[in-house]
Amino acid sequence: MKWIDIRSDTVTKPTEEMRLAMYRAEVGDDVYGDDPTVNRLEELAAEMMGKEAALFVPSGTFGNQLAILTHTDMGNEVIIPDSNHIFIHEVGASAVIASVQLRTLESPDGMPELGRIESAIRSNDVHFPETGLICMENAHSSGRVLPLEYLKSVKALAGRYSVPVHLDGARIFNAAITLGVKAKEIAATADSVMFCLSKGLAAPVGSILAGSKKFIEKARKGRKLMGGGMRQVGILAAAGIVALEKMVDRLEEDHRNARLLAELLSEIKGLKVLEDRLDINMVFFTLEFPEPQVVVEEMKKRGIKINPPEGKEYRFVTNNDVTTKDIHRVVTVLKEIVEDFS
Amino acid sequence: MKWIDIRSDTVTKPTEEMRLAMYRAEVGDDVYGDDPTVNRLEELAAEMMGKEAALFVPSGTFGNQLAILTHTDMGNEVIIPDSNHIFIHEVGASAVIASVQLRTLESPDGMPELGRIESAIRSNDVHFPETGLICMENAHSSGRVLPLEYLKSVKALAGRYSVPVHLDGARIFNAAITLGVKAKEIAATADSVMFCLSKGLAAPVGSILAGSKKFIEKARKGRKLMGGGMRQVGILAAAGIVALEKMVDRLEEDHRNARLLAELLSEIKGLKVLEDRLDINMVFFTLEFPEPQVVVEEMKKRGIKINPPEGKEYRFVTNNDVTTKDIHRVVTVLKEIVEDFS
Amino acid sequence: MKWIDIRSDTVTKPTEEMRLAMYRAEVGDDVYGDDPTVNRLEELAAEMMGKEAALFVPSGTFGNQLAILTHTDMGNEVIIPDSNHIFIHEVGASAVIASVQLRTLESPDGMPELGRIESAIRSNDVHFPETGLICMENAHSSGRVLPLEYLKSVKALAGRYSVPVHLDGARIFNAAITLGVKAKEIAATADSVMFCLSKGLAAPVGSILAGSKKFIEKARKGRKLMGGGMRQVGILAAAGIVALEKMVDRLEEDHRNARLLAELLSEIKGLKVLEDRLDINMVFFTLEFPEPQVVVEEMKKRGIKINPPEGKEYRFVTNNDVTTKDIHRVVTVLKEIVEDFS
Amino acid sequence: MKWIDIRSDTVTKPTEEMRLAMYRAEVGDDVYGDDPTVNRLEELAAEMMGKEAALFVPSGTFGNQLAILTHTDMGNEVIIPDSNHIFIHEVGASAVIASVQLRTLESPDGMPELGRIESAIRSNDVHFPETGLICMENAHSSGRVLPLEYLKSVKALAGRYSVPVHLDGARIFNAAITLGVKAKEIAATADSVMFCLSKGLAAPVGSILAGSKKFIEKARKGRKLMGGGMRQVGILAAAGIVALEKMVDRLEEDHRNARLLAELLSEIKGLKVLEDRLDINMVFFTLEFPEPQVVVEEMKKRGIKINPPEGKEYRFVTNNDVTTKDIHRVVTVLKEIVEDFS
Repeated sequence: MKWIDIRSDTVTKPTEEMRLAMYRAEVGDDVYGDDPTVNRLEELAAEMMGKEAALFVPSGTFGNQLAILTHTDMGNEVIIPDSNHIFIHEVGASAVIASVQLRTLESPDGMPELGRIESAIRSNDVHFPETGLICMENAHSSGRVLPLEYLKSVKALAGRYSVPVHLDGARIFNAAITLGVKAKEIAATADSVMFCLSKGLAAPVGSILAGSKKFIEKARKGRKLMGGGMRQVGILAAAGIVALEKMVDRLEEDHRNARLLAELLSEIKGLKVLEDRLDINMVFFTLEFPEPQVVVEEMKKRGIKINPPEGKEYRFVTNNDVTTKDIHRVVTVLKEIVEDFS
Repeated sequence: MKWIDIRSDTVTKPTEEMRLAMYRAEVGDDVYGDDPTVNRLEELAAEMMGKEAALFVPSGTFGNQLAILTHTDMGNEVIIPDSNHIFIHEVGASAVIASVQLRTLESPDGMPELGRIESAIRSNDVHFPETGLICMENAHSSGRVLPLEYLKSVKALAGRYSVPVHLDGARIFNAAITLGVKAKEIAATADSVMFCLSKGLAAPVGSILAGSKKFIEKARKGRKLMGGGMRQVGILAAAGIVALEKMVDRLEEDHRNARLLAELLSEIKGLKVLEDRLDINMVFFTLEFPEPQVVVEEMKKRGIKINPPEGKEYRFVTNNDVTTKDIHRVVTVLKEIVEDFS
Repeated sequence: MKWIDIRSDTVTKPTEEMRLAMYRAEVGDDVYGDDPTVNRLEELAAEMMGKEAALFVPSGTFGNQLAILTHTDMGNEVIIPDSNHIFIHEVGASAVIASVQLRTLESPDGMPELGRIESAIRSNDVHFPETGLICMENAHSSGRVLPLEYLKSVKALAGRYSVPVHLDGARIFNAAITLGVKAKEIAATADSVMFCLSKGLAAPVGSILAGSKKFIEKARKGRKLMGGGMRQVGILAAAGIVALEKMVDRLEEDHRNARLLAELLSEIKGLKVLEDRLDINMVFFTLEFPEPQVVVEEMKKRGIKINPPEGKEYRFVTNNDVTTKDIHRVVTVLKEIVEDFS
Repeated sequence: MKWIDIRSDTVTKPTEEMRLAMYRAEVGDDVYGDDPTVNRLEELAAEMMGKEAALFVPSGTFGNQLAILTHTDMGNEVIIPDSNHIFIHEVGASAVIASVQLRTLESPDGMPELGRIESAIRSNDVHFPETGLICMENAHSSGRVLPLEYLKSVKALAGRYSVPVHLDGARIFNAAITLGVKAKEIAATADSVMFCLSKGLAAPVGSILAGSKKFIEKARKGRKLMGGGMRQVGILAAAGIVALEKMVDRLEEDHRNARLLAELLSEIKGLKVLEDRLDINMVFFTLEFPEPQVVVEEMKKRGIKINPPEGKEYRFVTNNDVTTKDIHRVVTVLKEIVEDFS
């Protein structure tokens, strides 16, 4: 039986082309700067982000935390929407590694009004930490894509206060497709950007941190400190190059599948799709059902892996390993379960 | 000319009785536990807080940060209203010293609903930091006093999740007067409490951290680490004892003066007192006036020290050095300035 | 031209068998615990170390720092020889990430006498940090292998004070061969051990941290915090399994080649091999030669990569990509250069 | 009975003149910069240290840790003799607060040869932390005074590498007397200096951190972060001014008493004074006696407080509360005890 796995796009398996690229990859010791495949990936990534330089890192969390460590001084404050991945899903790392305080703004969609951001920037006072960074996320993990204009305004505001901006662009290419722009146009609204080669792009492991030459040079040392100096990592970079060259345009499919999934799910009784969060490859919905764990287990028995809801919200994620036929199967199975148990 | 200083109650000068007590204080080396006056103060403070033990610390910020360092493990998350002193006015220290992440809840009055606190407590997940502490503040620096029932509910909730509660009680005695209870009844809603001997109680320097014997024992070592191990500090403790024995009941005067001040200020044209924040010795108001700095300077020329407004809010604070006559003078002078410049 | 690279064993390229294994690797999302190849590697590694559990990490530095983070509380002190990799070559990470103080003992061979270690263990005093960990390294990066008896004594001593021991066993299999024991016998002298799949074992990327089940469970969360949660990392784990199954015994070749290299080098005039540090695949020597940089450049012109000396010491390292014939070539070339320039 | 306390000079009680000065002290809120007595002390202290500015801090540990926090960036390395107070007696604070790694040099007398310091300065390498500070201590807590020439050489060396130097001058005035120079001549060999108003100078509480105007401005904010912003602390500053104006020359007495004590102690059988560490007000000696605890207890029974030996070394410290007559009494009593128990 082939599993259908819609828990996340992080579960995506590498493609045959990636496997071949990894098999053949020319490698070297990247700590010595000797890995030609890594060097090639970093150049390509920098170019696609419109930045001077880029750095391969083991994960998205690693890239975000390294960005914070590199931009800030210890004791700084970082302004960040409270729905941002860095605050919610990165184990509180920024207080441990960079020793900075997160100043969260309540904002379920990751887009606090500019006035609130401006109010949060600290003035010069012996009681206040210095504001060292503003963090944004696009596509946002709520399933939304932030408009380019919003991000441009944030950048302009930050610039007026000489505060840098970091973008968690784990799914920046999904956002770019939705916005109908090149990823580098989004990246231009930040001083540094992190994006993932895994997830929708299907590479097995790895993310990229991109920024100015000086920033990346400093980050390279921070990467070593954080234990991210890897050796013949050209193996992974080879898959990353395939991801960037072949998988970016494909994301449109995942978005189409997500919209189809949303449409079909809406027909299930007691199920309510959160329509305003349907911008990328994620479908969020609520479902009247007494015991969520039963849904998870029953789906699993039928070959479909889903996550339990967070609070009341279920999230289904389309990805490179999920076909349109799978989408239909998912809905059919869920409908059966709901009917059986009601 | 005698200045009238209503910037804060931190400006209060020690009384003659405190000066005499300091002059005569029996002292010893407190790092060796040899200072009899410190020992006496710590016992008295513990008793008044209804806790097993107490520790003298150089400031309120020191006491709060030491409480966080003592309660938490590095990497923990601390739930705290975003209007709390620890988040706003302590220079981002908790990310530097205790290496914890603050999970702020937007709450101008320091009283987020219980449901929001409960939602903020982290479940067990590899992506999440552990919730290590909940922080409350009473009296709240917005001028409000939190009802005892609210604090009891927070404590009960925290207890269900085995999360300790720390209370920033810098002005706990002001809160006690307003609530008509003993300070220890408020302190009972927290595992640890910090309060200030300076401010309304008029001691020149120092705060107290109180809690269980085990907690204070651990905090004693943390105090040394943070550089707060002082020597013949019985000098200051002597004033602290006077503060606790003689100044607590006097706070009622400051509250009366504050209410009088509010009443009189209300008569000034264009001035609006924030009536819902009149619980202690602070009066908050807004004032239609083109240049706030001019108000500050003109008051100063006439012998009255005030702080510039934060945003649009002015804060006047009554204290042991401000008489009822001073209150009238403040209002008369402000009225003149407003009239002269309009 | 094929390069001969004797700068380190970190430069070793993956073998054909590893490449095939990576190509075919069955993978899953390791953050969900779903990668069967990673799971298999971790079981195998735990078994070979004689520990209950093991964890795949991106690098040796990552594994060592994660071990410190997991064993200690913030503010602890870690006893460590000053020649240990953790102190010299890990960018000062332990003060940043784990917030611990290293108490270094001067010891060029990594084997301070037991009495010095015992003296360094802190007693209970308000001025002292608590001793939280003792770190050892075997094989030691000076080229020496520490005798098993020494490590056993350190473990026994540490046990008497209830202090855990971590072993940086980056090259534990080299040490095992030299000592004629199984690696797990060395690992038994520590509570946790880190070893590298790269280096002599020739896997492209990755290291293992092994210890008790409880320790590894805690470390798994710390790994996520440090950004080491990777996705379909079974790709790398597949090579790691080949490394453990096929490459361990092969290390004996590197040792033989190192001894041969030492013997041949000794014949060069002005070159002095440090014979007491010839335990593994490293040859250390001094060379009378005016400008070391010239040696590096001239070797490179002739197809041989070496590192410049640290201080006065050169280090040549044999590895899976260096044949016996290459050894002869290295010496011939170096001899020529020395003669040409003298 | 009047106790004779020779455990340390930290036990010294404030003088009558200090008590009067504290009684009369004009004070204000020092966080607002409003305390005239603190301001006067800081000016006086800066002048005596030959520095642009100075800052009152609650303790010597606070001043040293604040200096490290102010000079360094997180992740830096600090070169320091392993006998330095900062490493031994400050609870490992620098890894917690400043997040720096101490690179200790074994040096019982606090004077590692220059060559060793120079070797310890890190070169630019991705594996290395940056050297951010060198710490010295004079007088050294071993009882020795470091020659001015040595400190000048360290400063010159540090300057060549653009590394700042911090001096723990807790007892800088003792050192100055022994060297026959002004304290500012010693302070000139460092970028920042901390000295104590307590200890031999007999003020009840407080230390000074002095340095450039820019350094002290930054330190002022760090002091707030560390919880050292105190209010009407002019009370303590008043005693500090007396200490600086009246107590500095008096230290010569303590030194004379220490030499007398050493001379008399030498006559006790089985007691060996460490003559090479007799530079200030401390006498170190070893004593053949089966149970050190008995010595401590028997002395106490007879009205004399001493510390138990650290390892085999006893330390007796003269101070403002110990007269020449007391010195004779101490020796007489110790002689009796030794004879009674042998």
